[in-house]
Amino acid sequence: MYDASVEPDQRLTDLIRRIEALEERMPEDQVAIGVMSGNLDSTIAAFIIACGAAAYDMEVELFFTFWATAALRDPKKKVKKGMLDRMFGWMLPSSSRKLPLSKMQMAGIGPKMIRKVMQMRGAKSLEELMAEAGELGVRIKVCTMSMDIMGIQREELIDYPHMEFVGVGTFVDVFSNSKQCWFL
Amino acid sequence: MYDASVEPDQRLTDLIRRIEALEERMPEDQVAIGVMSGNLDSTIAAFIIACGAAAYDMEVELFFTFWATAALRDPKKKVKKGMLDRMFGWMLPSSSRKLPLSKMQMAGIGPKMIRKVMQMRGAKSLEELMAEAGELGVRIKVCTMSMDIMGIQREELIDYPHMEFVGVGTFVDVFSNSKQCWFL
Amino acid sequence: MYDASVEPDQRLTDLIRRIEALEERMPEDQVAIGVMSGNLDSTIAAFIIACGAAAYDMEVELFFTFWATAALRDPKKKVKKGMLDRMFGWMLPSSSRKLPLSKMQMAGIGPKMIRKVMQMRGAKSLEELMAEAGELGVRIKVCTMSMDIMGIQREELIDYPHMEFVGVGTFVDVFSNSKQCWFL
Repeated sequence: MYDASVEPDQRLTDLIRRIEALEERMPEDQVAIGVMSGNLDSTIAAFIIACGAAAYDMEVELFFTFWATAALRDPKKKVKKGMLDRMFGWMLPSSSRKLPLSKMQMAGIGPKMIRKVMQMRGAKSLEELMAEAGELGVRIKVCTMSMDIMGIQREELIDYPHMEFVGVGTFVDVFSNSKQCWFL
Repeated sequence: MYDASVEPDQRLTDLIRRIEALEERMPEDQVAIGVMSGNLDSTIAAFIIACGAAAYDMEVELFFTFWATAALRDPKKKVKKGMLDRMFGWMLPSSSRKLPLSKMQMAGIGPKMIRKVMQMRGAKSLEELMAEAGELGVRIKVCTMSMDIMGIQREELIDYPHMEFVGVGTFVDVFSNSKQCWFL
Repeated sequence: MYDASVEPDQRLTDLIRRIEALEERMPEDQVAIGVMSGNLDSTIAAFIIACGAAAYDMEVELFFTFWATAALRDPKKKVKKGMLDRMFGWMLPSSSRKLPLSKMQMAGIGPKMIRKVMQMRGAKSLEELMAEAGELGVRIKVCTMSMDIMGIQREELIDYPHMEFVGVGTFVDVFSNSKQCWFL
């Protein structure tokens, strides 16, 4: 008499192993967005999608790198810096409120106009979206190499509930386990 | 006597459940491209890849957002607009034929040059690629929030066989079910 | 008596078929990066991630297209060109060392500054990253249509151990089999 519980079929054992391998390799219900350009339009897009995906119960990882790290600066927090870092500090936006547009910048009028129109049409501001992302559990990982290059220190960044400081290895890990990853 | 059809092995039932879960989670043979920058070069790239993927029997979803929504305008279609929307309308490209390059714009000479060279080298124009995409079943989804902000109305967009107007929730749904998603 | 080895259960055979289909569709441990903007910042990011992923034993495919093809030019290699291609040749960067920044270009001071700061902070230069990518087996595929348009010939490109010249069909194939694909 065939009794599967005491004498497991070898073929079945093989199948289980193959199913486990598939389960292991299947990407998680997670999306990773590389936020890099540091433009107002791209950063708004990143947070709208992040909040949208988090609202649908996806895990969301934002990887802030290069120019975008400046978007996380808090202008109220002052830190001591060397000459070179101070120079970079002046050239980079002092906070999310100073991000330029990728188009129609018009010496700073463009971003103000887009923000105004978004407000008139009932869309959330970038800063409101960032707060919402924090509440929804969207994780922000900041590239430490970019911070080193731009001379940006942890102490001058905004308070955000799920912020970590990572290297490229962590980012590889994150996108490997994500369903999707793209840059903005 | 062991009869699988009437008394199913519990282990086998478990395996079937795990296989079904994997099948459910496996991404579809679909690629989603976020078209956002509204540059001639990026938009051409999006449609070349879209047509290429569709020719290989992949499902293709183009998600038009922000600046790129203006690339879908038809200059022959006129609609009534309020003051603010009219102002935006003037600043944004009036159709795909007016898209700027991300580089070498040279006051409008760059795009003309690239279009000329592409024609000389036997490459399809953006407008030919858009028509081909329609024939190949490439779907275009336009972000309604972007249209609201830019003051762009459905009635002024080109005739395209597979165009829909959607919010961020639909986009989350689309990229969740896609093999790949990226922005251009 | 039930003997699985000689009289295979039909249900088991079905399961194996479904598992095989899943294994077939599961994306490879591979990442594809479209390198397109031809900016110094984006190109550095592409190679840092490429080297990082390759160091973690992922397969990495870089797809060079549009402006980025000029980043692969070797200024020491001279080729004969027609008038139009020569004109493009002048306008495009003559090598990776001449790539512009997406921001803070400042008439060429920006890229020099970023390179200097990266060196001071112990980060590898773009050219060192490109050599490392070659050693780590990162594959570069160059879009032949872009080369045609830009008038760039194979003979003027850098020596790289894993470089191929491909059309859009190959790119579709590459991203179809990748875990992730994004553009920079």
